[in-house]
Amino acid sequence: MHTAVDTGARRPAATVVPPARVAVAGATGYTGQELLRILSRHPSVSLTAAMSSGTTARRLPALARLWTGEIEPLSPDSLRNAEVVFLALPDKAAAEIAPALVDDGVLVIDLSGAFRLRQEAERARWYPETQRVPTGTAYGLTELARESVAAARLVANPGCYPTATLLAVAPIAAAGFLDPHADIIVDAKSGVSGAGKTPSERTHFCECHGSIAAYGVFGHRHGAEIQQGVAGALGESGEGQPVVNFVPHLVPLDRGILSTIYVRLKSGITEDALSELYQQTYGAAPFVRLVGATLPEIKHVAHTNFCDIGWRVDASGRAVLVSVIDNLLKGASGQAVQNLNLMLGIDERTGLW
Amino acid sequence: MHTAVDTGARRPAATVVPPARVAVAGATGYTGQELLRILSRHPSVSLTAAMSSGTTARRLPALARLWTGEIEPLSPDSLRNAEVVFLALPDKAAAEIAPALVDDGVLVIDLSGAFRLRQEAERARWYPETQRVPTGTAYGLTELARESVAAARLVANPGCYPTATLLAVAPIAAAGFLDPHADIIVDAKSGVSGAGKTPSERTHFCECHGSIAAYGVFGHRHGAEIQQGVAGALGESGEGQPVVNFVPHLVPLDRGILSTIYVRLKSGITEDALSELYQQTYGAAPFVRLVGATLPEIKHVAHTNFCDIGWRVDASGRAVLVSVIDNLLKGASGQAVQNLNLMLGIDERTGLW
Amino acid sequence: MHTAVDTGARRPAATVVPPARVAVAGATGYTGQELLRILSRHPSVSLTAAMSSGTTARRLPALARLWTGEIEPLSPDSLRNAEVVFLALPDKAAAEIAPALVDDGVLVIDLSGAFRLRQEAERARWYPETQRVPTGTAYGLTELARESVAAARLVANPGCYPTATLLAVAPIAAAGFLDPHADIIVDAKSGVSGAGKTPSERTHFCECHGSIAAYGVFGHRHGAEIQQGVAGALGESGEGQPVVNFVPHLVPLDRGILSTIYVRLKSGITEDALSELYQQTYGAAPFVRLVGATLPEIKHVAHTNFCDIGWRVDASGRAVLVSVIDNLLKGASGQAVQNLNLMLGIDERTGLW
Amino acid sequence: MHTAVDTGARRPAATVVPPARVAVAGATGYTGQELLRILSRHPSVSLTAAMSSGTTARRLPALARLWTGEIEPLSPDSLRNAEVVFLALPDKAAAEIAPALVDDGVLVIDLSGAFRLRQEAERARWYPETQRVPTGTAYGLTELARESVAAARLVANPGCYPTATLLAVAPIAAAGFLDPHADIIVDAKSGVSGAGKTPSERTHFCECHGSIAAYGVFGHRHGAEIQQGVAGALGESGEGQPVVNFVPHLVPLDRGILSTIYVRLKSGITEDALSELYQQTYGAAPFVRLVGATLPEIKHVAHTNFCDIGWRVDASGRAVLVSVIDNLLKGASGQAVQNLNLMLGIDERTGLW
Repeated sequence: MHTAVDTGARRPAATVVPPARVAVAGATGYTGQELLRILSRHPSVSLTAAMSSGTTARRLPALARLWTGEIEPLSPDSLRNAEVVFLALPDKAAAEIAPALVDDGVLVIDLSGAFRLRQEAERARWYPETQRVPTGTAYGLTELARESVAAARLVANPGCYPTATLLAVAPIAAAGFLDPHADIIVDAKSGVSGAGKTPSERTHFCECHGSIAAYGVFGHRHGAEIQQGVAGALGESGEGQPVVNFVPHLVPLDRGILSTIYVRLKSGITEDALSELYQQTYGAAPFVRLVGATLPEIKHVAHTNFCDIGWRVDASGRAVLVSVIDNLLKGASGQAVQNLNLMLGIDERTGLW
Repeated sequence: MHTAVDTGARRPAATVVPPARVAVAGATGYTGQELLRILSRHPSVSLTAAMSSGTTARRLPALARLWTGEIEPLSPDSLRNAEVVFLALPDKAAAEIAPALVDDGVLVIDLSGAFRLRQEAERARWYPETQRVPTGTAYGLTELARESVAAARLVANPGCYPTATLLAVAPIAAAGFLDPHADIIVDAKSGVSGAGKTPSERTHFCECHGSIAAYGVFGHRHGAEIQQGVAGALGESGEGQPVVNFVPHLVPLDRGILSTIYVRLKSGITEDALSELYQQTYGAAPFVRLVGATLPEIKHVAHTNFCDIGWRVDASGRAVLVSVIDNLLKGASGQAVQNLNLMLGIDERTGLW
Repeated sequence: MHTAVDTGARRPAATVVPPARVAVAGATGYTGQELLRILSRHPSVSLTAAMSSGTTARRLPALARLWTGEIEPLSPDSLRNAEVVFLALPDKAAAEIAPALVDDGVLVIDLSGAFRLRQEAERARWYPETQRVPTGTAYGLTELARESVAAARLVANPGCYPTATLLAVAPIAAAGFLDPHADIIVDAKSGVSGAGKTPSERTHFCECHGSIAAYGVFGHRHGAEIQQGVAGALGESGEGQPVVNFVPHLVPLDRGILSTIYVRLKSGITEDALSELYQQTYGAAPFVRLVGATLPEIKHVAHTNFCDIGWRVDASGRAVLVSVIDNLLKGASGQAVQNLNLMLGIDERTGLW
Repeated sequence: MHTAVDTGARRPAATVVPPARVAVAGATGYTGQELLRILSRHPSVSLTAAMSSGTTARRLPALARLWTGEIEPLSPDSLRNAEVVFLALPDKAAAEIAPALVDDGVLVIDLSGAFRLRQEAERARWYPETQRVPTGTAYGLTELARESVAAARLVANPGCYPTATLLAVAPIAAAGFLDPHADIIVDAKSGVSGAGKTPSERTHFCECHGSIAAYGVFGHRHGAEIQQGVAGALGESGEGQPVVNFVPHLVPLDRGILSTIYVRLKSGITEDALSELYQQTYGAAPFVRLVGATLPEIKHVAHTNFCDIGWRVDASGRAVLVSVIDNLLKGASGQAVQNLNLMLGIDERTGLW
């Protein structure tokens, strides 16, 4: 699974394909607007409908000259007219709408958390509103799941924190490099757009500016998603499971996540071994850039679909991995379109470059 | 009026005065919290009550170790037990509560706009909820109104934009330096705390960060207050009135206002003449600092009660004045306490230094 | 000049043109990097060389996976091998290099100020290093100069402040709407990238964060450029010249300019008249969006090549115009590529959409 | 050592003491300026000299009306005239100057790192310029070292990261609560003022704004200081030493540190046990505030000398400690003055409240 791959074109390039009819539900939030911005210029897509998550209709001045359509009220029925539907809705709404669309033969890319957790017990704990997971559901961490995404009928687009974190740590787990007795500490820092668009005391400019706050200690759903990703990768190596201790922080910037991951490696695993492993895993992945001991910074990935990964290992086997993404793009809408491209069998960079 | 003054001590220093019993109504907003922070450490004040602007009671963790009281629900009746009351309430609530308190012999310092405009027509237009202005009301632009504030029973604490703007332009108007045929352009930039604490789309971190927006063009109440201040100053010189064109902007910082003021001076008025005038006006004012052609910056006044003023004049009589304050201190709670000090007859720096 | 235009395609669409060989000199500054970012993905361009402004060679990790070339030391000689050269150099270097390149038949797009001022006296005052202005030099404010840019051999790419300001005020001046007796006040606010990439006390994070500062009062070269643009536009209407009073401010954001422009209109010119004029001027311009009384905000244009313009007029003829751009794109590298597109005779949106 | 203490007054209150003659060397950096700001208003101090770290003399406009002295060039000789000297100098200069001053009977509070590490090997590795540590040197983490500070002749004022981190973790180590087999992960986030005032690419506004970067992995000197503090605290409990893995991050805010500390507790140690321990340790400490499971935020401590500490423990013994300070105050100049107060035998809040 974690081996080098080509950039994803699966249909013969010569075939002239009519643009896919695509709809977006939940188009007024931050991720929804990024979806519109990308899809309105995507050469293989015809954006046929954009709906809010509720009953409001409105125009988006920020998209003037780019997309002149109107945001319609949410209508699950008319979503069926699309070939592909992006759901950028609250978990509950996505949990209800997605299975029916899949039943109707619509491809669904879901940006909510409703279908991310595979184990029923975990899903019942963190996403109790999810009643049914359709057959053909894939967890869409693109670089590590290209084949299952390409074949999927429903893609559960990963959370922003898990995307940044798992792209760095999953290859190490899968390679059997982890000391199973040490905790995996994931200290993640996110821009405020990760908290969503709804005004609240927490997202007030004056509460965020000049401040940092940890939140969701021991209780954030992305912790379960990261634990699942580590477990899945370890599964391949047949080892015991280190505990993931995930603490997200809100930091005064608009967009971007930096995830600092502290792991203990088995004796003898060096920084060079990590470099080789990453190179093997991501050498051909267009959206993962390996920066090694330089360590990555959010400013290099903001407003892009890149994930930049850096790492340091000391002589005693302590490793620090640092992974950065734009939470709205690689952490949400960009990765969703990357998954769309795989599902359409076209170059995964289309519309994102 | 605009002549140099001492720093305001009016009671004989030797008199031992018991601390004034002071209450704050509207203690949970940004200005209210600054009031608590200052008053809890003010040596001549006993903070006897702090009330919210509504029915909620709560504690303020940010003030732990400084002030251990509780925020009570608003109770106009029990405000009467204080000798001095600060009102940091919405205009409507202040308009109702203040006159009754004054009738009961309580000194009131009102941070709302309800009593700032003297002309009935203007007040009816901008503050229709104000029914009655008590006798003994003074407009509390401290440096230019020390005597009337010291004698007042109700101080209408100036708005943040008018404070920064009038401290710079009023002396020039009063001195008869203004060309009456040219508009006065006031382009003011404010930190987001000026928009208040209530969460809204406008104050969402992601809407403010990395952005600037003009608002309230031709329709902001502080424009009328600035026009009144210029008119009042000009009144002393008996001239025609230039029109004030005031446009505020929201800028991505927490606190602070920078007001850039563009005026035309009468023929022959030089940069040196302005320097002399300002020196004469503010040479002994502890909270006004004159920086001349250096031009002031917000960072030098943030978290202080200072107003820093700079100016440039060219050969043709164009003048650019730049004035900066902390909008929550000199533009609100700091100036309010400065006014309290004048009313109590003590050094105006008390509790603010 | 200010009439509606098509989006610029001048060559027959069917012609297959080989990509233009393009070089960038000064590729390590903020504008240079934006140029590389755009040109590396521009479908009609082959990026043949990227040089620093000095003797250093280096790689740009932020462009990994986008552009794998190396930044070479500046070599005026080898620039001649390109068909089009972008100069993002200091004024002095551009003043020296550009005329020789033009003599050699290379098309030059110069982002410095060296060739922006047409009047010799003004140029000698503000850009004394400029010895010679080649024949075929055009001032590249794209929307108002499409024909002269398309025919030019050297394009003087406008300054960032003049771009934002003149796109708003020049049509009004050209239409003869301005009261010639009132000053034009231009209060402009810029993100810190406008101050360039060289570290200095002024650009230190802690000096900018939480602060605002005016600078360059009566002495900024962009003031002369704005005055020239207003004069040029007025020239068409044959009127007297209002004085431009331009004051730039540094504001704590990364990129973006908001220019607030205060003018007096002739009696009878209404807000609707302005709307009509702007619609006529920019209705077909892909990169100018008219937002009217809503007033524009930087966040809608950051990371794009758009200029958004808003306006308000009151009954007395006072007008407030607000114009926003991304200073690195529409204010520099984006507009430069827009000009390239016109020179190549292709759709002006190419590579910028 | 970690038991509750009074607030520090050690001289009889009635004694009238003449102000201590105090000098500051290195007064132009961020910590130096904070020192001047505090000391100029400190009632028990006469600020007799302020020197730069080099040969420059200058005035500080930001301190106008507060302190009117001039910054003199550095003169080790004339420092001897003071009773107490604050050194806010580079490590090398402090290493040279401090011992001689102590020899001359001057009390020294050193904000550099030169005298912080007790073990010679560690000191030689991280601070090779330090030749001699005077007798009477105390490590000045005030709340955990009141007695040794009060008796000291040279106080090594702690680093900013160690201050925030050790105030949270040292009591737990001293109480014997730590599982010695698990690493202590310290993920610290600092405002940019922590990187000092010298302009560099790293501190350029545009490099910091909208970005986060990890730095100094496995190689930051504060890591050794934290390890020493943990070892010292553990020493009291006689246990093995967990390894400290410290990674600092630069975050886009001006001032403030948030340190997130991940530890494993011995079986049976609950969140309540931690609460009790902290209450016992800091219940009477005026500058440490315990916020428990609420978790602290930088905005509540910025511009104050407070350290706010929060904590969470889960059933399996994982603990997350979060500690916040203002890096320039409690992390540098504020704590230095707190130490001064202890040395003078006066209330430790003097000048800091």
